[in-house]
Order: sequence, then C-alpha cells, then structure tokens
Amino acid sequence: MTPDAARLASNWDTLSTFRDPSLPGWTRRPFTPHYAAARAWPTERMRDAGLAVSVDAGGNLVGVRRGNQPGLPSIVIGSHTDTVTGGGRFDGMVGVLAAVEVARGVRDHALRHTLEVVDFLAEEPTDFGISTIGSRAMAGALTSEMLTLKSAGVTLAEAVASVGGQPSSIGPGRADAALYLELHIEQGPLLESQGLHLGIVTAITGIARFRVTLRGRADHAGTMPMRMRRDALAGGSAVVLALEELWLDGAGVGTVGRLRVEPNATNVVPGQIELWAEMRSVEASALRDRAARFEHTVHELAAPRQLGCEVQPLSYEPPVPIAEEIQSALAEVVRALGHPPRRLPSYAGHDANQLAKVAPIGMLFVPSRAGRSHCPEEWTDLADIALGAQALGDAVLHFDAALR
Amino acid sequence: MTPDAARLASNWDTLSTFRDPSLPGWTRRPFTPHYAAARAWPTERMRDAGLAVSVDAGGNLVGVRRGNQPGLPSIVIGSHTDTVTGGGRFDGMVGVLAAVEVARGVRDHALRHTLEVVDFLAEEPTDFGISTIGSRAMAGALTSEMLTLKSAGVTLAEAVASVGGQPSSIGPGRADAALYLELHIEQGPLLESQGLHLGIVTAITGIARFRVTLRGRADHAGTMPMRMRRDALAGGSAVVLALEELWLDGAGVGTVGRLRVEPNATNVVPGQIELWAEMRSVEASALRDRAARFEHTVHELAAPRQLGCEVQPLSYEPPVPIAEEIQSALAEVVRALGHPPRRLPSYAGHDANQLAKVAPIGMLFVPSRAGRSHCPEEWTDLADIALGAQALGDAVLHFDAALR
Repeated sequence: MTPDAARLASNWDTLSTFRDPSLPGWTRRPFTPHYAAARAWPTERMRDAGLAVSVDAGGNLVGVRRGNQPGLPSIVIGSHTDTVTGGGRFDGMVGVLAAVEVARGVRDHALRHTLEVVDFLAEEPTDFGISTIGSRAMAGALTSEMLTLKSAGVTLAEAVASVGGQPSSIGPGRADAALYLELHIEQGPLLESQGLHLGIVTAITGIARFRVTLRGRADHAGTMPMRMRRDALAGGSAVVLALEELWLDGAGVGTVGRLRVEPNATNVVPGQIELWAEMRSVEASALRDRAARFEHTVHELAAPRQLGCEVQPLSYEPPVPIAEEIQSALAEVVRALGHPPRRLPSYAGHDANQLAKVAPIGMLFVPSRAGRSHCPEEWTDLADIALGAQALGDAVLHFDAALR
Repeated sequence: MTPDAARLASNWDTLSTFRDPSLPGWTRRPFTPHYAAARAWPTERMRDAGLAVSVDAGGNLVGVRRGNQPGLPSIVIGSHTDTVTGGGRFDGMVGVLAAVEVARGVRDHALRHTLEVVDFLAEEPTDFGISTIGSRAMAGALTSEMLTLKSAGVTLAEAVASVGGQPSSIGPGRADAALYLELHIEQGPLLESQGLHLGIVTAITGIARFRVTLRGRADHAGTMPMRMRRDALAGGSAVVLALEELWLDGAGVGTVGRLRVEPNATNVVPGQIELWAEMRSVEASALRDRAARFEHTVHELAAPRQLGCEVQPLSYEPPVPIAEEIQSALAEVVRALGHPPRRLPSYAGHDANQLAKVAPIGMLFVPSRAGRSHCPEEWTDLADIALGAQALGDAVLHFDAALR
C-alpha cells in the first residue's frame, strides 16, 4: 500500500481550517461547535475510505472495515482531532489523517483482521479535569465518578452524550482489540536534531499531577511589614523553582504550567494561590520517588511562611512500556523503508496510554520542527507525515499477517 | 469641643449599610448607585453640622463653614467614602465621619479660619487606572489627559460629571488652603502591637510601580527537556522572590500582588508572564536606589533563562514628608489627651498625598486590629474613632489659633 501524499496534504490543509477564530493558534476544543464541524468532515473521509462509521458509547468516532476471518480481534489505529487552546495543526490530527489514508490504501487488500480507524474524543486536558476521555472509555477506564465531573454546569456524561456518545452504555473495556497502533508527532526535538524522519517509541512517560493550594493572608501591600506577611505568591514562587530544580538532572521533567492568584491586585499581598504541577518520567521509580519528594518539599516551603498548604494528587499514570516484539517489528518496517530504526521514549501522554490497558500497543513518531508543540508554531514536514502513514500502513499489513 | 461618641458610632453604623450587596465585604465603588446613595447621606450630616454643602469641580463633596476673619485661607479636613472591592468599613469612612463630627463639635466655637469638611471623590484605585481622583483635582494634579481615560466606554470626565463635578472647570489647584488634616486608620499592625490608640504620621510612603513582562517559549510540558526550556513562570518566580529579598531589611516593602500566566495550561511550559510589582518606602533614596536595583535584577534573572524582558515603570510617587512643626503640634494634642505621641510613617497612600502639593498636611492614625485592611475583617474600635475625632477637633482648634 502507498499513501497518496498529495491527498494527505490536502486533507491536512482542510482539517486545519476547522478552528475557533476567537482563540489564538489553531484551537479546536472538544464539545464546541468547531469540534463538531471538524468531526463531520473526517466522518466523510472515513466513508470515502470504505469504512462503516459510527460513534461509540464513549463518543469516539469509529470507522470499521471487517476482516475476512470472523472472530479475530481488531487492529485499531487512530489518534485525536481536538487541540489545546492556542495549539497547532499536527498533534493528534496527523495520526487520524494517516489512519484514514491507511484504510484507503489497504481498501483493496485482503485483511484477516478487522481494521478500525478511531478519532478519539477529547485527548487533551479538558475543563472537566481529565484528558483522554474517549480512549479511557474504550479501555473501560472512564469511571462513573469521572462522568459526574462538571464544567460550566454540564456533567461529563452530558458532554459525551452531546457528541453522540452513550455514557450509560460505556462498558468495562474492549476485549476484542488485537493491537493498537498510533502515529504521532514527536513533540520534542530529538528526531530533528539527529536528522531523522521516523522514530519507534520505547515507552510512554508516566505522569503525576498535583494541585497545590497555598493559603496565606490578603493584606495591604503597603502597611503590612515584610516579616509579618503570609504571602501566598512568594510561597508559590518557591514551589515553582523547587519543582524545576527537582528535575534538572534529566531523569524526566517537572512543570508548573498554571497558576492562579487571589485576589490578584497590585496593592494587595496575595492571600491564596493555586498551582497545577506535573512531572513526567519513563522511569517508574524516579517518578514515584520524586512525586513524594515534591509533596514533602511543598509542605517544607509552606511552613516557615505560615501558609496553609494542600497538595492534592490529581492523577498518577505510571509509565507505559511497549513490548519489545512490537518495537522490533516496527523497527523492521522502518528499516525496510530505508530509515534508521531510532528508538526513543515519548514524554507526552497519548490515547495509546489508555488502549494499553486492553491491548498491546505500538507507536511511531515523525519529527517536530525545533521540538515545538502545543503552540501555533508546531510543524512537521508534510513529506514526513506521508512517510509516517507509509510506515503505519506497512505495520498494519505486517501485524495483520503476523498476529494470530 | 467633645465629639459625641454615641452619634459617631451610630453614624458609622448607618454609613456602613450603603454597600453593593452583590460584592464581597463592604464594597462601595465610586460612580455606582451605592456610592451616590452613600454620599447623599453625609450631605445631610454635613448640613446638620451647620455646613453649606456643594460638590466642587472635581466631584468632591465639600461642606463649608465660614471663619470670622475673611481673607484667611481654609483649614481642610476629611477623607473618602469609597472602598476597594471586598473592602471594610473604616478605611476613609473614619476620616469623613470624624471630620463631620468635628464640624458639629466646633459649631458654637468662634473660628478665625474657614473650616471645610471634604468627602474626596474616588480615593481608591479605579478602573480608570488612577486613584485619588477628587484630591488630585483639588490639588490641580488631575490632568486633561487623565480626564480622557476610559472605563467601560465612559471617560473619567463623564464619570466626574455624573457625580455632580464640572471637569471643564477644574482649576490649577487651590491656593487658599492653610492646612489639610486627615484622620485615618493605620491599616498596619504597629499601633495595636504596642497597645497605642493614636499615632502621628511622619511621612507618607513613596510608591514605585512596574509592570514586568517576561517572554519565553510555550512548549509541551512533557517533550521539551528541562535545559532547553525558556519557562517564563520559572523566571517570574525568581523575580517574585528577588523583590521579597530586596526589602526584607525593613527599609520599606516590595510586593508582587498580581501575576498573569500565558497560556496558563497544566501541560504547557509558560510562554509569557506579566507581573505587577510595587515597592514603598518613606526614604526617598532607598526607594529610588532599589527601584533601579529591581529593574537591573529582573534583567539579570531573565538573561540566563533566555527570556525576553521588559520592565515598564508605571508610576513613581516620591515619599511625602510631613513638616516637623505640624508633627510637633499634633504630638502636643495627643499628649494633652493623655496618650503617648507615637510617631510612625504611613505605608499607604492617601488623599493627603495630593493635598500636600498645595498645602501643609498633617495626619493622625487610629489602630487597625491585626493590621488588617482592604478586607472585610478591617476593624478599628469605635472608642478609638471617637478618640481620633477628639484629637482631630483639638488639632483644628490649635491650628485655627496658631496659623496666621
């Protein structure tokens, strides 16, 4: 099978146009009209590729082409079409567009396994407080508790229903998936810096997220002497720098991306802050140890400043290793295309994290210019997307033959 | 003259009731219906005290009682009745209520000088971007440029006119004020911590304000290695702590009260921050030197992090010293009332800052419980307010006799 690079480029261009013009970059937040419009379009592209399209209970857009050996589990390929606010045109989109192109490319091939192309619902973090909503549902990991989470007065269950899902029918996780393969942009600088065009993912990073609340006292910024203050932002600043310091050795990364100050007025000593901290590592022990050390450090920094302190763990996803036999098979596909089979970890989470709970997974990366992602400058050469689609298609054919 | 403590307490209680119930604390923002209602009530109290009441060009509510030596300049007393959002019931109000009570108390005394009681318009920071609007106007410091500032589509000139002012008639500053005296709450913890009930202000703090913008790069919080990041919030955190460090020696105070992060998402390395920094000192040289050192430090912290850096001075008000002879006279009044004449600086700005441009000023403080201010917990014992009114009245009588 050979992907049509021109069609892929044209499809990429069209899908990019579905965005919220009132927000920066290429923004397509889930559960918005822009997202609904964007998803109507790949629905048509899936049908063009000969797929039978429906929305599953978890709100995922699923295109199915039956295999010729009934009873065999499915090979699932895909990614997502939602973006972060102010994001780019490659994260997620590349995997969905390539999967559709693969389905089209193998349309006339006999396949033993059923092939499913999925546009997963809401992969990026949402205002409900969780990410990978659709792939969680498919993996049986979207709990009824999560479905009661609210954003702007709407429950997650209602939001899932609004895109055509049936939250009450979400099952315990699919038992009929033989393999999940995802093509994604690297989102980091490694492949580009080594002049490479394809990468094979060895493991997906674990992620620990915390919300830290520091409660001080809002005082007049003139009249309260420095040493009598309980300045929540000064405490929060120390936390930001401590988290940075904790990961400077390269064992992973730590970030405070979000911070809220109250009352946030020039002439008032900040009375309270909330910050959201995350740390990532592909080493399970490093992640566990440093998450614990971070919690401890926050309390240590808060105490001498007389700040009330709450460190609430929001989520803890351990690293997801990828089976050596799948990595080797993908390496063989990459080598056959004339490229060095560079292996590297993924420091971003993906829908594959969730699917790994119910099936073996494999992931391929294409390079990101300057490693930029989650920003308007995100860029991957269109030739690399076509190459990635080729590798994804070859991998589907390989596993269709190799899997029992 | 002796203030009527019961009437003062009852007046305080009534004035407190004029507030915006939709906002926290005791909120009475200028140019709102709540403010208009609140001002109609002191208008009546001023008339009860025998004053002829009008609104001046700058929107100040002015009650006048003519002195018996025509041609002598006026003794002006007063403060303001607007509050910050979520504020308390003492800041400003105490000075207006005490001034009205003084006018009432000296009603039957012969005074050489004309006595004016002023409720100044909009002392607190406004959405127009400036504070002390009415006292600026009286001091000739409300420029025509300021009058074109807009908030919610309304110019400041229109807003001043809406409360009965005549912005086109605002003159170059009064030349007929002999003295301005203001009673205010301390807003800090000093008097209370020393068991004192009255303080004499030595100087009003200078204030330097800056807006700092740090421009880094918004990157994916997983995939961008720590040492390749340009994290604007990590840089901003270092600035917050550096400003705190700069003022820990007690020569003044430094605060970052407000911070804005972009894009402010958990999984994105912050690409840009803006923070608002202010520093205050009653020592002119300390304020000047440290403001310069702060600017320098911000650039030094930004450079190794490869952050674009802009430090924009927003305002610079030098400290306002209070003449020794006025402090001494007030100390004599306080001593005569049986209290130690504690002198202390004011770390908050006041209408007196503006009046100092056209007349000698004097200020008296009464204690603030736990030093709290600009918050609903703001509290001053009603007995201390009565004592403050007594001192203010005694000072008026002293200066009426002593000034030429």
